[in-house]
Amino acid sequence: MSNNRMGKLIGVSMGPGDPGLITRRAWEVLHQDLHWAYPVRRKGADSYALDIAVRAGLAPPAHTPLVFPMTHDTAILAKYWLRAAETVLEILRTGQDLAFLVEGDASTYSTFNHLARSVAALEETAVVEIIAGVTSFQAAAACVGMPIADADETVAIIPAAYGVAMVERLLADFDTLVLLKVKPLLDELIDLLQQHGLLAHSRFIEKVGTPQERVIHDVAVLRGEKVNYLSLLLVRNTERARGALVRGCRKQASTEAETA
Amino acid sequence: MSNNRMGKLIGVSMGPGDPGLITRRAWEVLHQDLHWAYPVRRKGADSYALDIAVRAGLAPPAHTPLVFPMTHDTAILAKYWLRAAETVLEILRTGQDLAFLVEGDASTYSTFNHLARSVAALEETAVVEIIAGVTSFQAAAACVGMPIADADETVAIIPAAYGVAMVERLLADFDTLVLLKVKPLLDELIDLLQQHGLLAHSRFIEKVGTPQERVIHDVAVLRGEKVNYLSLLLVRNTERARGALVRGCRKQASTEAETA
Repeated sequence: MSNNRMGKLIGVSMGPGDPGLITRRAWEVLHQDLHWAYPVRRKGADSYALDIAVRAGLAPPAHTPLVFPMTHDTAILAKYWLRAAETVLEILRTGQDLAFLVEGDASTYSTFNHLARSVAALEETAVVEIIAGVTSFQAAAACVGMPIADADETVAIIPAAYGVAMVERLLADFDTLVLLKVKPLLDELIDLLQQHGLLAHSRFIEKVGTPQERVIHDVAVLRGEKVNYLSLLLVRNTERARGALVRGCRKQASTEAETA
Repeated sequence: MSNNRMGKLIGVSMGPGDPGLITRRAWEVLHQDLHWAYPVRRKGADSYALDIAVRAGLAPPAHTPLVFPMTHDTAILAKYWLRAAETVLEILRTGQDLAFLVEGDASTYSTFNHLARSVAALEETAVVEIIAGVTSFQAAAACVGMPIADADETVAIIPAAYGVAMVERLLADFDTLVLLKVKPLLDELIDLLQQHGLLAHSRFIEKVGTPQERVIHDVAVLRGEKVNYLSLLLVRNTERARGALVRGCRKQASTEAETA
């Protein structure tokens, strides 16, 4: 150890793709002389998070890609997590702060929490900061002008891989469904939305805020199509019958909307 | 009309309270010579959204508070929505762009969508831009270091006013519960979390990112306490038994995490 002070690990949310959706705090950290790290799926692969920084006009300082492979083999994953945490710790132990760049929000479907936990498991004195960011579904909602939630509404965010039966079941309780990673089930989802009269209230958004952004208002045209895995469906469940709210909370529940 | 060009209505998400969580695009718009508007609950009341701008060091240009009262009387509400939309349109018709400042994200429990719809109903040529932002629950998750979602996980966002029975029911399907506006049901929620062994995996966060921020890790201590309505509970449902994912989607579903 060349220095008594351990560097800090900073999870830097880069937002979903548009460099304009990087926060001021993230922007400030990206201009400090930190070491950068970012996730890649394999050695030499491009990093979506790093690409957002590059499109924002930033020149990466010293930087290290960390490999998180596409596998569910827990033994292989554990090996890569450990290696990534050790690489991060080596840098932190020089006293250098490290910015780990993640697309979207660092707490929402991100590698950052795993990494931070692995680092903390190896070195309990490690200090972690997380800078929250804009998610792909918030940017998608803004892009198509469809609310994620109004006053008293409920929202479910689910990977579509749980299947159409679960999606159908959730229609009873939720005003908005955010369906992620819809690629493998898209045709079945379109059928379900049609059966429930929800096609007109559904939007498909792929790679929001990037040069490859694609927005489909008439999602039925996507039948049979292969879509990118960075795609989602926003579904507004407009006909839902809601139960009564308790304890005069309807009034309570409206408060946030009124001051928002 | 003094000008043929209608001004644009821009929904500017200010993030949940920390001026550092304003996005670069919002920051840029806030520095243009636009008219500002922002919601207040009654004439002369403070605006949470405007306060974020002021704490960011910005001096408001020409600005107009728009009153959205705390009521569920639809006749009264309709009158105020109409008045707000007319005020906005008057400004847009001078050719001036108008920035409507909202706390959090403009698509998520915000007044902005209502306002934009009301404006569009009066003037179909009105042009609207929405700048997405960071929500209170993303900032809360970052603040306490608790993920909103890992790889394949499901998230429910619900106003607690739907009652503890619904919250309990959702434990079967959701890995994370974001419970908003918990004030009127806090004691019952704490009892429920205790019954399910989830107190250790719950965090209470109030006014995140503001000088009044309050974070409670041991939420049981809040029993009997009156809390601010801008408070939420994050609950990680760690013991949930998950169904199988379909069509090899477990692999699919892991992709985002690996590139995030």
